[in-house]
Amino acid sequence: MAEKLRIALAGLGTVGAGVIRLLAENGELISRRAGREISITAVSARDRGKDRGVDLSGYAWEDDMTLLAARDDVDVVVELVGGSDGPAVALARTALAGGKNLVTANKAMVAHHGLELAGLAEANGVSLRYEAAVAGGIPAIKGLGEGAAANRIERIYGILNGTCNYILSEMEATGRDFGDVLSEAQSLGYAEADPTFDIEGIDAAHKLAILAALAFGTKLDFAAVDVSGISRIRAADIGQARALGYVIRLIGLADCAADNGDRHLFQRVAPYLVPLRHPLAGVSGPTNAVVAEGNFSGRLLFEGAGAGDGPTASAVVADIIDIARGNVLPPFSLPVDTLQDSAPADPGNRRNRAYVRFMVADRPGVLAEITAAMRDAGVSIESFIQKGQEEDGDEPVLVAMVTHDGPEGSVTKALDLLQGSASLVEEPLVMRLLG
Amino acid sequence: MAEKLRIALAGLGTVGAGVIRLLAENGELISRRAGREISITAVSARDRGKDRGVDLSGYAWEDDMTLLAARDDVDVVVELVGGSDGPAVALARTALAGGKNLVTANKAMVAHHGLELAGLAEANGVSLRYEAAVAGGIPAIKGLGEGAAANRIERIYGILNGTCNYILSEMEATGRDFGDVLSEAQSLGYAEADPTFDIEGIDAAHKLAILAALAFGTKLDFAAVDVSGISRIRAADIGQARALGYVIRLIGLADCAADNGDRHLFQRVAPYLVPLRHPLAGVSGPTNAVVAEGNFSGRLLFEGAGAGDGPTASAVVADIIDIARGNVLPPFSLPVDTLQDSAPADPGNRRNRAYVRFMVADRPGVLAEITAAMRDAGVSIESFIQKGQEEDGDEPVLVAMVTHDGPEGSVTKALDLLQGSASLVEEPLVMRLLG
Repeated sequence: MAEKLRIALAGLGTVGAGVIRLLAENGELISRRAGREISITAVSARDRGKDRGVDLSGYAWEDDMTLLAARDDVDVVVELVGGSDGPAVALARTALAGGKNLVTANKAMVAHHGLELAGLAEANGVSLRYEAAVAGGIPAIKGLGEGAAANRIERIYGILNGTCNYILSEMEATGRDFGDVLSEAQSLGYAEADPTFDIEGIDAAHKLAILAALAFGTKLDFAAVDVSGISRIRAADIGQARALGYVIRLIGLADCAADNGDRHLFQRVAPYLVPLRHPLAGVSGPTNAVVAEGNFSGRLLFEGAGAGDGPTASAVVADIIDIARGNVLPPFSLPVDTLQDSAPADPGNRRNRAYVRFMVADRPGVLAEITAAMRDAGVSIESFIQKGQEEDGDEPVLVAMVTHDGPEGSVTKALDLLQGSASLVEEPLVMRLLG
Repeated sequence: MAEKLRIALAGLGTVGAGVIRLLAENGELISRRAGREISITAVSARDRGKDRGVDLSGYAWEDDMTLLAARDDVDVVVELVGGSDGPAVALARTALAGGKNLVTANKAMVAHHGLELAGLAEANGVSLRYEAAVAGGIPAIKGLGEGAAANRIERIYGILNGTCNYILSEMEATGRDFGDVLSEAQSLGYAEADPTFDIEGIDAAHKLAILAALAFGTKLDFAAVDVSGISRIRAADIGQARALGYVIRLIGLADCAADNGDRHLFQRVAPYLVPLRHPLAGVSGPTNAVVAEGNFSGRLLFEGAGAGDGPTASAVVADIIDIARGNVLPPFSLPVDTLQDSAPADPGNRRNRAYVRFMVADRPGVLAEITAAMRDAGVSIESFIQKGQEEDGDEPVLVAMVTHDGPEGSVTKALDLLQGSASLVEEPLVMRLLG
């Protein structure tokens, strides 16, 4: 058996403690699979005194986590600190530049600095691995970068945020409204105290940008992701969708079209209406799922726990085992200097069916105004639902429609025509149907 | 870029031709991902003259496929001939013993000779890869052996045969009987002229035995798989199952219990009743799906096309890319001489709910006879369905029941008590409920 592989762990939150427990509990098996012993030599976290339920006495401690990267007794630095900048990226840069392998679960850091870090890894002949950064315990990065490597990927999409999926599933199951379910999710620990990154789609956008670079061989471009979240979805939207044969899921979706050598990358995170027969419609609770459509493989789906200490630790340690086995790949499957430039695709040209929902003042002429705008913008309406109020009152009324297949730009134009209308009491909500 | 990787292709059926098309169509991308050019240098098949829709003029031809393994201009032999013995295994042995990498889609050969071939590969420092042998285009072997490598796998199960899944889905969708749908599947090319290997579960058993060895680190033991197929399932069974909230799927399932160091491996291929909410219930048509339950990852699901030239070629070429990248692993994730012995688990001790269906002569006392046998064997009945005939006649009547959770041995005992009963016009059919 080869020499043991020595790990430094930066960050001892739930995932860090999970990695320690996993290596303890499955250590013998992991050593056999890896072909060598894997052992933690040093750790670092903010608070040395905190009780994390794991015994740290066998490991060296560094107050300054960046010093982990300088230790002679460390081969792999595992970064579980989080945050797109600050200590995490300082540690990552120091580790890779110093010729140490880096394993991270930090999607924000990879989304923002992935190209730079991959360049450092390649220049120094070490691994940068981030399986745990996307879709928790699911080996989606490996599935895409290795399992589907023979394919031109035509589209990737999936459910990339467990918090949103939990909230939407709960809204669906209980008929409760967003704010109510969010509060419960927070009290159960499924949502953060500040849930913005999750519910506004930013976390999913980090993951989508990473997947897109890997799938299409394009340069990571997080800033170009078209992001909207789930906070404006009402229980009534979920009810309407259901009546039409759909569930609502926050979907990250990307494709890449080549046009005379110019690549147009489309990246969107948004709530979609997913047909009940689609495999993603059955994905409930904090589960994640990633779909890759290859030109030879056809549709591949990877599903599993999107978060949690156990699944995330499983992905982190899978990366460590790959390093122990000597499986060194370019972090984005292709050498980083060969990743291609792309321009953001113009969404206005995309064809979709869309669900458009208005909250309107209940007064004469409202429907005529909306339908006239749709007509003038060339939007063809397939079905139209007005949910009246129970009693005559001042409450706004929900009006929803599903359009026929048509360019997104037409819907945008119709909504522009309605901009400023006194009939609309809030901005319309548009959700596309997953085709 | 490193030297090019030279491929010999044995077998030019639909998958072989698919590999040629895939390498032609995606060749530039594949070379970039693999870090080196991948090119076919030599081919072999039974009939040189046959038109396969691909141009073979650039490749050397060998009439005797075993000679492919002796060529100096070949680094990887791709075996797409099929069959557990004969030319395929002769080629595989010659290739590996001669220090050439072997990629195969041949589940029968791996199920029967996997340990021997893995030993040869390890002794000669080359790769034996067989992603395409299990679940077509789905990277299930990679997902299990690498993606889930940090886990003790507690159970694996899945839909491993596309032909059976197509037939069962069609029976479900149309209400037609088995023989009828099988004939149609044969005329559509979804089932072989001799469908025995598929419909009697043998093909799925090959795949299950491979997955079990990989998941549990046990020696491959195909002979110990408890196999039953789908040919006895009636349209009425599917209807009853549906009424109870289940669909019927041919499932391969394995787990491994350690008892004082002795390992008891349970491997079964059989039709199961799958709850409608389970992700496998939604897997229809020729799709395959593999579920692995890891002690840290939780439930991982991999789904995709289980057969077809494109998906299978995708898996074959993924293996070739791994070899090009230098990712050499023991074929069963652990060194073959460390795989552990196991004894077949006694299924009688397993607890399950079961669907038991009888075809009985419609005469007084039949139900009393069946229920008495169940009582005497200690089987507790949860629900009981007698499907009467429309008219008074001599046709046998279907009687079905679902048992409460209990040991399989009790159901077996009850059926033993009924053995030889003049009331039963055919052997009872037992299908377990997937828990």
